[in-house]
Amino acid sequence: MDFEEKTLKRQNIFEGHIFKVAVDDVELPNGLGQAKRELVFHRGAVSILAVTPDRDIIIVKQYRKAIEAVSYEIPAGKLEIGEAGSELEAAARELEEETAYSGDLTLIHEFYTAIGFCNEKIKLYLADDLKKVENPRPQDDDEVIEVLTLSYQECMNLVATGQIVDAKTIIALQYYALHFGGDA
Amino acid sequence: MDFEEKTLKRQNIFEGHIFKVAVDDVELPNGLGQAKRELVFHRGAVSILAVTPDRDIIIVKQYRKAIEAVSYEIPAGKLEIGEAGSELEAAARELEEETAYSGDLTLIHEFYTAIGFCNEKIKLYLADDLKKVENPRPQDDDEVIEVLTLSYQECMNLVATGQIVDAKTIIALQYYALHFGGDA
Repeated sequence: MDFEEKTLKRQNIFEGHIFKVAVDDVELPNGLGQAKRELVFHRGAVSILAVTPDRDIIIVKQYRKAIEAVSYEIPAGKLEIGEAGSELEAAARELEEETAYSGDLTLIHEFYTAIGFCNEKIKLYLADDLKKVENPRPQDDDEVIEVLTLSYQECMNLVATGQIVDAKTIIALQYYALHFGGDA
Repeated sequence: MDFEEKTLKRQNIFEGHIFKVAVDDVELPNGLGQAKRELVFHRGAVSILAVTPDRDIIIVKQYRKAIEAVSYEIPAGKLEIGEAGSELEAAARELEEETAYSGDLTLIHEFYTAIGFCNEKIKLYLADDLKKVENPRPQDDDEVIEVLTLSYQECMNLVATGQIVDAKTIIALQYYALHFGGDA
C-alpha cells in the first residue's frame, strides 16, 4: 500500500510572523483521486520541564489569546529565524528569560503538536540542577507572565480544575510522574 | 497583575474547511501597549487510546501532508460542524470508522495542542472492552490508513525511531505506562 500524497499545486494564503498558511492540491495514493490539504507552517518551539532541588516544577501563568483565557504551562518559546538545529540554546534562553533560572538540559521528547494540519514541532527538555541567574535576560516586551514554583500535586490540581489544559505541559507532567514518581 | 489581552480589531485572513485564520490587534494589560496575535481557529478533535484484551494498542499508519511523512498515531478525527459537546459520539464514530472496533469509552485527558496560536482542543478517550464491529462505517474517502495492533514495547520502539512523533499519541502512551504498566 502506498501512502504518500504528491503535491500538485500549492496556494500560499498567508505569511505571518508566527506561521504561514497554504492550501495544497494533492494526488492521493492508490488512484483515489485528488484532495485539498489546508496547512500551517511554523518554525517550531522548545519547552522545559524545570525541576527544582525540592522536586517542585516551574510553571508560567500567562494569557493565551487563541483560547481567550489564562493558562498555566511549563516554560516555552518559539524558535527564532535561523535557530533550527539550535534548540538546546533556545531552551536555555527561554528558561533564563521566563524564569531567571539556568540548569542542565536533557532532551526528553520531541513531537508535532497538531500533526493533522500543522508542522509545529516542540522539543521538550528536562532542566535539573537549577541555579538562579544573577542578571537574567529580560522577558519579551509583549509577554505578561507570572512564574510559580509548584509541587507535582499542585500541578495535578490545576489539571483537575482545567487551568492546565496544554498538551506540552501534560506530556511534561506525565514524564515527571513516570520518572520522579507522583500519583497519576 | 492583570493578564487579559483585549481585542481592539480582528482581521479575518482565511476561512477554510479545517481551520480559520485571523490576526488580532490586542491591548496588552498593565499599560504595556499593543501587540498583534496571529490565530488559528479549529473545531477540535477526538482521539482514542484503544487497548485490546491482550493489552495491545491500536495504531493507525497514515501520511501527514503537514510534515510530508508517514506517521503512526492513535485513532483520531476532527469534530464535524455542530458536533461540539458530542465528543463521546465522535470518538465512538472515529474508532469504528478507522479501526472497525467499538469499545467502552472514558475521557482521560483534554488539551489544547498548540495553545500559543491555535484553539484546537483534543479530547482523549480510553477505549477498552473492544469488540469488532460486523459492518463498520466506511473510512473517509480521502484517507489512506493501515490499522496495526502493537504491544506497548513496539510503540515505544516507534517513538525511539522517530515514527511516533505526534503529541496526542505520546500523551496516550504515557497514560498507558502510568495506568497499565510498561517501561517508560
